Amino acid sequence: MSAAAPTAFEQRLAELGARVETEIDALLSPQLLPGELARPSRLLAAMRHAALGGGKRLRPFLAIATAEMLGVAVEQSLRPACAIELVHCYSLAHDDLPAMDNDDLRRGRPTVHKAFDDATAILAGDALLTLAFDVMADPATHRDSSIRADLALGLARASGHGGMAGGQMLDLDAERQAAPLPHDSIALLQSMKTGALLRFSVEAGAIVAGASADERSELIRFGAALGAAFQIADDILDAEGDVATLGKAAGKDAARNKATLVSALGLAGARKACDEYIARAVYALRDFGPRAGLLIDAAHFTARRDF
Amino acid sequence: MSAAAPTAFEQRLAELGARVETEIDALLSPQLLPGELARPSRLLAAMRHAALGGGKRLRPFLAIATAEMLGVAVEQSLRPACAIELVHCYSLAHDDLPAMDNDDLRRGRPTVHKAFDDATAILAGDALLTLAFDVMADPATHRDSSIRADLALGLARASGHGGMAGGQMLDLDAERQAAPLPHDSIALLQSMKTGALLRFSVEAGAIVAGASADERSELIRFGAALGAAFQIADDILDAEGDVATLGKAAGKDAARNKATLVSALGLAGARKACDEYIARAVYALRDFGPRAGLLIDAAHFTARRDF
Repeated sequence: MSAAAPTAFEQRLAELGARVETEIDALLSPQLLPGELARPSRLLAAMRHAALGGGKRLRPFLAIATAEMLGVAVEQSLRPACAIELVHCYSLAHDDLPAMDNDDLRRGRPTVHKAFDDATAILAGDALLTLAFDVMADPATHRDSSIRADLALGLARASGHGGMAGGQMLDLDAERQAAPLPHDSIALLQSMKTGALLRFSVEAGAIVAGASADERSELIRFGAALGAAFQIADDILDAEGDVATLGKAAGKDAARNKATLVSALGLAGARKACDEYIARAVYALRDFGPRAGLLIDAAHFTARRDF
Repeated sequence: MSAAAPTAFEQRLAELGARVETEIDALLSPQLLPGELARPSRLLAAMRHAALGGGKRLRPFLAIATAEMLGVAVEQSLRPACAIELVHCYSLAHDDLPAMDNDDLRRGRPTVHKAFDDATAILAGDALLTLAFDVMADPATHRDSSIRADLALGLARASGHGGMAGGQMLDLDAERQAAPLPHDSIALLQSMKTGALLRFSVEAGAIVAGASADERSELIRFGAALGAAFQIADDILDAEGDVATLGKAAGKDAARNKATLVSALGLAGARKACDEYIARAVYALRDFGPRAGLLIDAAHFTARRDF
């Protein structure tokens, strides 16, 4: 949103975002794959509404940039990166439902259930989640079946009841309670709800690249710290942002009694915690040397995100 | 429900059903797996409500019996069989939601959103679907990663927008239309909504057993015909059944203008079509000889199901 010329990082983010958009568009074409009987047009339209035309594609960026740092060409990591984004998009479609967060706007556009209806939004989310695993397991994604199985397993574990879906449950639980959550409960909630999939995005890049166990655990530490910073930055943005910047309603967290680290630590405390996580993320990459430049930029970008 | 002594098939169905129940119970224990941060208790309880304590476990039976016919011990097919059942259970939890079919009873018990709430039922369904792929991709399921990836891919393709979820969309579309669907549209809808997962249950057994391409395509034909018979039998049951037998409200299809083959063909025509599909299913197994006895019994059972 700044008027200054885009940085090298911003250019790369935009470039990879465009490739992700094209790939997801192709995945959601009317073209049938073997074993499919039909692609009902209303469902496909709702899936496309949920998955296309919005977002910075940060998760795919992290997967692709990590794989690239380890010597893997974009074409090799693009499909798994898109699978992760499909999971992210499904989660938004379901979280926005009236039974959940009841949001009408997402990235400045009507949410899926507003553009279609609740039933279609539920099914579109279900189908996007399912498609993500289809993509991970498909031989077109990688010739090595152990990598495909690893990708599918990691995605499931990051997204399920022990990860993202579990985090959303904790978030709903917290809204129902009168007393604010303690700091460590909020940290757990956020590490599940948004952290797990961001962390896995980085890990997926490592899996595609066949990274060593040491590299993989350093990258997981990077992804976990970046995920924590991301969520705090999001909370800060909600607390001080406005609708024009967010493309969605602002100040809703406080109105809903949402558990955030801004409410637990105050704005200044939250900013400090965010900076600390970014420092931790950068430190986790120390063994990768200058190759890690783009991922380090991504970590800094995360902390000052104005999108 | 008959007072006569159970047949060998009924005994085997009950025995394998109990093993499936035990395995799903273990999958949904509070025990964390690597990479999981917590299993929120309310979400886990809702998942257990959705997945335990009901049903004949026909899909797992088909997977296990198929694998067994091809020489694979039950222990080797039990986990993939349970993964398929988790997908079936997720679909019921979502289909029962007020935004979809709005059912309060399922197998004589409150549906998930009645026992918990809509948001929890949505999340429980999401998490069960995700867990199914976790199970398929987990090395604990099979040592051969190409089999695990094949299982995950086949499950995704049978369950997604080109299969089960797409079929549910077509079903909702049909309810909104004034004119009844033509016969072939109903057949497509049903082959997606219920047929695809039943067919894949049989195919999963073939995948686990490393069946030849010929065997696999014969078994897919068997599964497809059995799936079609199953759905017609279900429609017939709804048209003539009562709440006590079904454990759910009967006659709802007609009340809702649901697209069924009973409305398209009449009761006698539907019975005839069901018998033809069973004959086709049995014929598809002709090359397997006496080994196919249990699967043939399953096909006949499907046509006179009173559960």
